[in-house]
Amino acid sequence: MKTINKITVIGGGSTYTPELVEGFITHKEDITLNELVLFDIDNERLNIVGGLVKRMIEHAGLSSQVVLTLDRPAAIEGANFIVSQIRVGGNKARIRDEEIPLKYNIIGQETTGPGGTLKAWRTIPVVLDIAHEVEKYAPNAWFVNFTNPSGIITETLLNHTQLNAVGLCNNPINFFARMSRLFNVPDKEIFLEWIGLNHVNWVRKVYIQGQDRTSEVIDQVAKDGVPNYSFDANLVRHLGVIPNNSYLKYYYFPEKKVEEAKLAEKTRGEVVLEIEKDLLTKYANLDLKIKPPELNLRGGALYSEAAIRLILSIALDKRDIQIVDTLNNGAILDLPYNASVEIPCVIGAHGVIPLQMGNLPKTIRNLCQSVKSWESWTVEAGVTGSRDAGLSAFMSNPLVPSYTVAHDLLEEMLDANREFLPQFFK
Amino acid sequence: MKTINKITVIGGGSTYTPELVEGFITHKEDITLNELVLFDIDNERLNIVGGLVKRMIEHAGLSSQVVLTLDRPAAIEGANFIVSQIRVGGNKARIRDEEIPLKYNIIGQETTGPGGTLKAWRTIPVVLDIAHEVEKYAPNAWFVNFTNPSGIITETLLNHTQLNAVGLCNNPINFFARMSRLFNVPDKEIFLEWIGLNHVNWVRKVYIQGQDRTSEVIDQVAKDGVPNYSFDANLVRHLGVIPNNSYLKYYYFPEKKVEEAKLAEKTRGEVVLEIEKDLLTKYANLDLKIKPPELNLRGGALYSEAAIRLILSIALDKRDIQIVDTLNNGAILDLPYNASVEIPCVIGAHGVIPLQMGNLPKTIRNLCQSVKSWESWTVEAGVTGSRDAGLSAFMSNPLVPSYTVAHDLLEEMLDANREFLPQFFK
Amino acid sequence: MKTINKITVIGGGSTYTPELVEGFITHKEDITLNELVLFDIDNERLNIVGGLVKRMIEHAGLSSQVVLTLDRPAAIEGANFIVSQIRVGGNKARIRDEEIPLKYNIIGQETTGPGGTLKAWRTIPVVLDIAHEVEKYAPNAWFVNFTNPSGIITETLLNHTQLNAVGLCNNPINFFARMSRLFNVPDKEIFLEWIGLNHVNWVRKVYIQGQDRTSEVIDQVAKDGVPNYSFDANLVRHLGVIPNNSYLKYYYFPEKKVEEAKLAEKTRGEVVLEIEKDLLTKYANLDLKIKPPELNLRGGALYSEAAIRLILSIALDKRDIQIVDTLNNGAILDLPYNASVEIPCVIGAHGVIPLQMGNLPKTIRNLCQSVKSWESWTVEAGVTGSRDAGLSAFMSNPLVPSYTVAHDLLEEMLDANREFLPQFFK
Amino acid sequence: MKTINKITVIGGGSTYTPELVEGFITHKEDITLNELVLFDIDNERLNIVGGLVKRMIEHAGLSSQVVLTLDRPAAIEGANFIVSQIRVGGNKARIRDEEIPLKYNIIGQETTGPGGTLKAWRTIPVVLDIAHEVEKYAPNAWFVNFTNPSGIITETLLNHTQLNAVGLCNNPINFFARMSRLFNVPDKEIFLEWIGLNHVNWVRKVYIQGQDRTSEVIDQVAKDGVPNYSFDANLVRHLGVIPNNSYLKYYYFPEKKVEEAKLAEKTRGEVVLEIEKDLLTKYANLDLKIKPPELNLRGGALYSEAAIRLILSIALDKRDIQIVDTLNNGAILDLPYNASVEIPCVIGAHGVIPLQMGNLPKTIRNLCQSVKSWESWTVEAGVTGSRDAGLSAFMSNPLVPSYTVAHDLLEEMLDANREFLPQFFK
Repeated sequence: MKTINKITVIGGGSTYTPELVEGFITHKEDITLNELVLFDIDNERLNIVGGLVKRMIEHAGLSSQVVLTLDRPAAIEGANFIVSQIRVGGNKARIRDEEIPLKYNIIGQETTGPGGTLKAWRTIPVVLDIAHEVEKYAPNAWFVNFTNPSGIITETLLNHTQLNAVGLCNNPINFFARMSRLFNVPDKEIFLEWIGLNHVNWVRKVYIQGQDRTSEVIDQVAKDGVPNYSFDANLVRHLGVIPNNSYLKYYYFPEKKVEEAKLAEKTRGEVVLEIEKDLLTKYANLDLKIKPPELNLRGGALYSEAAIRLILSIALDKRDIQIVDTLNNGAILDLPYNASVEIPCVIGAHGVIPLQMGNLPKTIRNLCQSVKSWESWTVEAGVTGSRDAGLSAFMSNPLVPSYTVAHDLLEEMLDANREFLPQFFK
Repeated sequence: MKTINKITVIGGGSTYTPELVEGFITHKEDITLNELVLFDIDNERLNIVGGLVKRMIEHAGLSSQVVLTLDRPAAIEGANFIVSQIRVGGNKARIRDEEIPLKYNIIGQETTGPGGTLKAWRTIPVVLDIAHEVEKYAPNAWFVNFTNPSGIITETLLNHTQLNAVGLCNNPINFFARMSRLFNVPDKEIFLEWIGLNHVNWVRKVYIQGQDRTSEVIDQVAKDGVPNYSFDANLVRHLGVIPNNSYLKYYYFPEKKVEEAKLAEKTRGEVVLEIEKDLLTKYANLDLKIKPPELNLRGGALYSEAAIRLILSIALDKRDIQIVDTLNNGAILDLPYNASVEIPCVIGAHGVIPLQMGNLPKTIRNLCQSVKSWESWTVEAGVTGSRDAGLSAFMSNPLVPSYTVAHDLLEEMLDANREFLPQFFK
Repeated sequence: MKTINKITVIGGGSTYTPELVEGFITHKEDITLNELVLFDIDNERLNIVGGLVKRMIEHAGLSSQVVLTLDRPAAIEGANFIVSQIRVGGNKARIRDEEIPLKYNIIGQETTGPGGTLKAWRTIPVVLDIAHEVEKYAPNAWFVNFTNPSGIITETLLNHTQLNAVGLCNNPINFFARMSRLFNVPDKEIFLEWIGLNHVNWVRKVYIQGQDRTSEVIDQVAKDGVPNYSFDANLVRHLGVIPNNSYLKYYYFPEKKVEEAKLAEKTRGEVVLEIEKDLLTKYANLDLKIKPPELNLRGGALYSEAAIRLILSIALDKRDIQIVDTLNNGAILDLPYNASVEIPCVIGAHGVIPLQMGNLPKTIRNLCQSVKSWESWTVEAGVTGSRDAGLSAFMSNPLVPSYTVAHDLLEEMLDANREFLPQFFK
Repeated sequence: MKTINKITVIGGGSTYTPELVEGFITHKEDITLNELVLFDIDNERLNIVGGLVKRMIEHAGLSSQVVLTLDRPAAIEGANFIVSQIRVGGNKARIRDEEIPLKYNIIGQETTGPGGTLKAWRTIPVVLDIAHEVEKYAPNAWFVNFTNPSGIITETLLNHTQLNAVGLCNNPINFFARMSRLFNVPDKEIFLEWIGLNHVNWVRKVYIQGQDRTSEVIDQVAKDGVPNYSFDANLVRHLGVIPNNSYLKYYYFPEKKVEEAKLAEKTRGEVVLEIEKDLLTKYANLDLKIKPPELNLRGGALYSEAAIRLILSIALDKRDIQIVDTLNNGAILDLPYNASVEIPCVIGAHGVIPLQMGNLPKTIRNLCQSVKSWESWTVEAGVTGSRDAGLSAFMSNPLVPSYTVAHDLLEEMLDANREFLPQFFK
C-alpha cells in the first residue's frame, strides 16, 4: 500500500506528537496518510496539541484528515497502526518514582530499577485495556509501543495479548547517527549487531560498508571520543562490545548516578514538567505551524524518524533491517524464549522477524540476564498483582542491594502509587 | 564496490559455466567484473567452454577479461569470489552412485541417500584441498558452493575451514518463480519462510505482498495445481507446510521412485553424459555467442540468477533476504548449532546472518532431524575416513532399511569408489 | 511402612497374576500385605486365576486377604498401589496387530511399529478411564504400569493425568541376570548405565563391583557369547554400547524379522492364546497351589521380582537405584522434557527421581529420537483421536518406509480396530 | 573392598585432621585403612598434628600405619583417596581477604564475594600442581576436595584436570542433623532436594519418611524456630524453598553483615588464628589421645562424618544418595553444563552421578545464576591469570555494586596478594 488509511495515536495530547507528525511530513513522497486520529484523556492538551498538528499538516500541504477524540474505541476502530505513548499518573508519578528510591540510595529513573518497575505497574492495567479494545476493533492493526519502560510493556503485550505488537526506542537510530558522523558515511552504509534489551544493550559489531570497524570505535572512545558518546573508555575496552550510552551507566556506575541525582536541584520529572508547560504555551500559539525547536529539550531525538521508518517498512513491505523490541524466540540463545529483546529484525508487511544473534558475549551475559529476570518478574507482578512476584522483581534488579531494601522500598512505593495499581489493591 | 575485481570458477569447464556468465551479462548495469578466471583440470573442456565464455562476454559488450588456467593457486590468488562447481569422478561415478543402491531397492541419487553420501566423500578431500589454498591465497574471498550435495559440502566448509563459505541451490529461486506465476506478482513481492536443509526443505509460510496465503497454496495443489509443482495433495495438506518439489519425493515416496528408476532406460547420469556431449559440441561452434537454449535440459534453471544475486548483495552490501545454506547457530531450534541449514538470511558485505526461524513444525521435525543426522555423519566420515562414522551415516539415512543393508551397501560402494577415497583407504 | 494395606491389580484375571503373587510370597519377610484385590472384566478368568491366587497365598502361610471383584471403583478405592496389566481387545486384537502389517512387509508386534501403535490406541481410552477413577478414589496411590507398549502408556499417564505413575518392564532385571551369570557376581554388585526408552534401549556402561567392564562384555558377545544374549557382534562393536536383546532387533534387522514372521506357522498372539488356554486349565486344578513352571513359556521372566522390588522401595523408602520408565525432565539431554524414558532412578517413598544420564551416545541418538517421535505422536493421536496425528505416528516410525504405506496401513488398521477406538470414530 | 590401602591428606598439618581421623575410628567396623599419609609443607605443625593422630589411632586400637611426610609425590603415589584441605597464604591472607573489602563496604569472607575470589586465586595454582602429580602418581585415586571455596576449586579440578574429583562441604550433613532433631527421626529417614552451588544453596523439598514436610518446616521457621537455623521467616516464606543457613545471609542481608563485621573486634581469621594456636598447644600434649572438644569452635561440625561417608560409599560401592559438589551436566537445567553444582548424587565405586533436579525455582534462579557466573569467571581468571576475567568475576558478583568498585578493589586485592598469584604476575 502506498496509502495508509488510518493511524491512531493513543496519548495524542503528548508534547511528542508534533515530532511524529513531522515524520509524516518529511516522508510525504513515500506514503499518503488518509486519517490521523489523536486520542487522549486530557481534552485541554488534546486541543492544544491537536491544533498545532492540524496547522502543521495544512502548512505542509498534506491532505490527511486530523481527528481529535476522547472516545477510545472509535479512535481504535479500523486503524492500520496504533502508536501508544502514554504516561499513567503523569509526571507527578514520575517524580515520585525518582524521589523515593533515592532515599534508599538507589537511582530513581523511569525505565530502570524500582522507578521503572512502578511505571510499568501503573501502565500495564491501562495498556491491557487498550490492547483488548484493539483485539476487538482493529485486530489486524500494528501496535507500536513507545511507552516506557518499552521492553517491559512490549513483553506484556507479546505474552498477554493477541496483538501484532512491536516496541520502539530512539536509542538505536541515535547510535546510527553517531556512527554516521564518526565515519562520515550515510546511515544506510552502517550495519550494527545490536544485542540485549530495551535500554540495556550493547553493540557487538559495527560494520561500515560491510567492514568490521568495531575495534576502531572502541579505540576512538579512549582517544578523541565519539560524538555524543561519553562512556568510560576502560570499561568499554574491558567489555569488548560498546555499551549503549545513557541507561547502562545506571548499572555500571550506580554510586555516581545516585550522587548526581542527589546533587541535582530538580528531578528529571520536575524539569520535564516545566519544559512541557513551556511547550504547550508555544503549541497554543496559532501562528506556530511547524515543530518548534524547543521540543528537542524534551528528549526523544529522532523518535519520529524511528517511528516512520517502522511504519513505512510494514506498509510498503520493505523487508529491511531495523532494531526493534520483539519476542526473542531463541534469537539470543542465553535469554528465555518468551522474553522481549532489542535486536536487528527484518521488517515487512509479514511482520517482524529477528535475526539470529547467537550467544551473548560473556562479558555482558550476567548483567543482561539479571535485568531480564527483573523485567519478567515485573511483567508477572504487573499483570497478576502478586506482591510476591513484585518482591522478586525488586530483588532481582541489580541496583537493589538486599532483601531488606527490596522489601521496604516495595512497600513504600506500592503505597505511594496505590491509586494507579488496581491489580495490587483489589 | 560497484566493481568486482576477480571471480574464479573452480570447475570452470562445466557446461553450467555459460549459465553463470549469462548472469553477469544480464546484470551488467549493476556491477562491473574485471577478471573472470575459469579453472579446471580438464584442459579440453576448459578450452571449449572457455571459448564460448569469451565469445559471450565480447558479444555482450563487457570489458571483463576471461582467463583460462590449469594452475589452481594462481586462479585463486586474490579472488573476491570463488564459485565452486566440481564433480569428482565425473558422471561415470554418478552412474555408479545411481546403479549400486538400486540393487538394494534404494534410490540412487547424487544428493540423497547412499549415492549422495558417496558423492560427498569423493568431493570432501578435494574441496578441503581447495579450501586450504583459499585460506592461503584469498583469505577474505567469499566461497560460493554449488557442488552437490550442497548442504553437506557447505557444512564441511563451515566446520572444518576458515572460509567465508555459503552454499547455494536453485530450488528456492524456482519456488519464488512458481509463486510469482501463481499469484501473478513480481518476485520481490513474495516472502517465504523456507525451513530445513538443502534438498530437504519445506515452505512454512508464503506471504504475497505481506499477506499470508499459505493455505491458499495448499488448497491450490489439490484443486487446479501449482505451475511446475506436482506433490501429492493429501500429503501436502497433512504436513500443513509445502514440501519442496523434487527431492523430498525420495523420502515420502521411495518405492515409487525406486520403481521409476528401475523402469528407466537410462540413469540420470547416463542422460546427462549425453546432454553434455551434445552441449560441448554446440559450445565448440565458433558461431555460438550466447547461452544455447539446450542448456536448460541439463537442469539448474535460474542457477545463474541465484548466484548473481548472492554476489551482488555481498558486493553492493544490499542487506536483502535470500535463502542460502549457512550455519544454523540456533536459527532452527530443533537442529544442532553447527549444522548447515537452508533458510532465509540477510546478505550484505558483512556476511550472511540467518533469520530466527524458531521450531520446526512438528509434522516435519523427525524427517528433518534424521536427514541432518545422516548429513553430519557423512561430514564426519568424509573428513576423517572413519568406516564406523560411514556406517552410522548409512544407518541414519531414512532410505536405508536396516543394519544389514547399510553394512553391505557401504562395503560395496566404498570398494567401487576406492580410487577417489584416499581418506578411507590410507 | 512395613505393612501395605491394599494392592489392586487391574486385569487381575491375567495369567501373569500368579507371577506377581509369587513375588509377595518370596518377600514375605520384608513386607506384609493386608489386602490383594484382583479386578477384571472377565468373571470366568477372574475366578480361575483368583482361585489359584487364594490357594497360593494360603499355601505360603500369608495372612493377606484376596478379594475378587468386577467393581472397578471399589477395587481402586484406598489402594496404596495399583498394578495395571490389561489387554484391550485381547489376543485376538494382538493377532490382527501382527498380521496386517506383515501384508505390507512390516513386522507386526505388540510394542513396536504399527502393531504397537494400535495396541496403544486401544489401551489409552481405557487406561485414562481407570486413571480418572484413581485420581478420585485413590489419589495418593502409586500406579505401576505393566501394560504394553509400556513407554507409551506411561507417557500418556505422566502427561495427561495427575497420577503417581511409573512404568515397568522386565528387560532391565533380565539384563542384570545375564551380567550376574557372566561375571559370577550377585545382582547388587552390578551397576548399569541403561539409556533410552522402553523396549528401545542400550546399556552404555556395565560396572561390576564399581569397575567399568563394558568393553569386556562387548568383546564377549563376539567371542564366547553372553548367556541369553544373541545380538550381531559386529553391530554391538559398531555401536559401542550394548543394545538390549530382543526388541531392537526389529529396528536393526527388520527384513530378517519380517521373513521369520512370514515363515512362522503361528503368530506370537496365536501361540499365546494356546499357552493361555493351557495355563487356565492348569490354574483351574484345585490341587495347584504354586505358580506352575509352564508360566515361564508365557514370557515375563522375573517380572514379579521387578514389580516387588519397586513396590518395596516405595513402601520401605529404600532409595535404591532401579531402572524404570519415568518422565525425562532433562535426564537424557537429547530427548524432549515431557518424554517417558527408561533409565536408572532413585526409588523411595518420595517417588521416582531419574539420574542425570547426559547426552545419548551419537551412534544411537537418531534411532532413539525417531522412535520417541513415533511414541509421542502415538500418545497425541491416542488421546485426541486425531487421524493426522495418527498418520504422523506411522510416518515417524522407522519401520514404515513411506507416506504411501503409512497412509494405507493406517486406514486398514484403524478400520480393523474400529470397535476399540472410540476416540477415532466419534 | 573392605580394606582401603592408602589415604593421603594434603594439608595434613591442619587442625582439622583429628576430625577426619575420628571418622575412621568411628567407622572402624565398616572399613580397614592400611596407611594414612599426612602431607604438609609446615614440618612443625605436621609433627604436632601427626603426633596426636598417631596417639588417636593407637588409642582406638586401629592397625593403620600413619606416615608423616614433606615429600608430596611420595605422599600421593598409589593413594586410593586424596583428601585436600589446604590454605594457601594461611590465616594471614584470610585476614586480608576479610579486611580489604570491608573498606569498600563489602563483606570480606573466605568463600563469598571478593575474599572468596582471592582465596580461590591463591589456591588454584597450588591445587593444579597437586592435581598434575595425582594424574601422574595416582591416576585412579578419588580426590576429595574440602578446600574453600569448595565449589570453585572443584569446578577448576573438574574442567582443567583428569582427576576423579568431588567436592565436599559439611553444610548438607548439618542440615540433615537439624531436620533429624526437628522431626525426631534418624538421618536415614530424611530425603532432601538440595539445589544450588556450594555455599549458595536451598532445600526445595524436605521428605521425612517419604512424606513432603517442606511447608511445615517453612512454617516452623516463623513459629517456634528450627534448631540451629535462624533465617528471616518472611524471606523463607517468600522464597518457598529453604535457604541454607549462613552463607546466603551475605547475599540477602549484605548491609547487616557488613555492619556486624565492622562492629566485630576481630575478623574471623583473627579468631581462627587464636583458636588454632590454642588447639596446637593442646594437640602437642602427649597425654591427649582423642579429638579435643575445643575443635568444635573451629567450625566444621560433622565434617569427618561427611568425608567418611563419601569414602565408604565409594570404597564399598554403596550407591546411596549424598549431597556433594560435582559437574552439572544438565542436572540443573538453568546452569551451564560444565558448572560445579551441589546436589544429591548417587555415590558408588563407579563414581558420582547427579540426580536430575530439573529447573531451579524461579525465586532463586537469578541469584544462583549470578553467583555461578562469578564462580566461573573466578575459575577462568584463576587458571589463566587474565585480569579481564578477574574484573568480570568481580563485576558479576552480586555483592560488588559497580564497575568502579570492582575495578579499584580488584587492583588493591591483587596487589596485596601478589606473592601468591604467579598466574597474574608473570
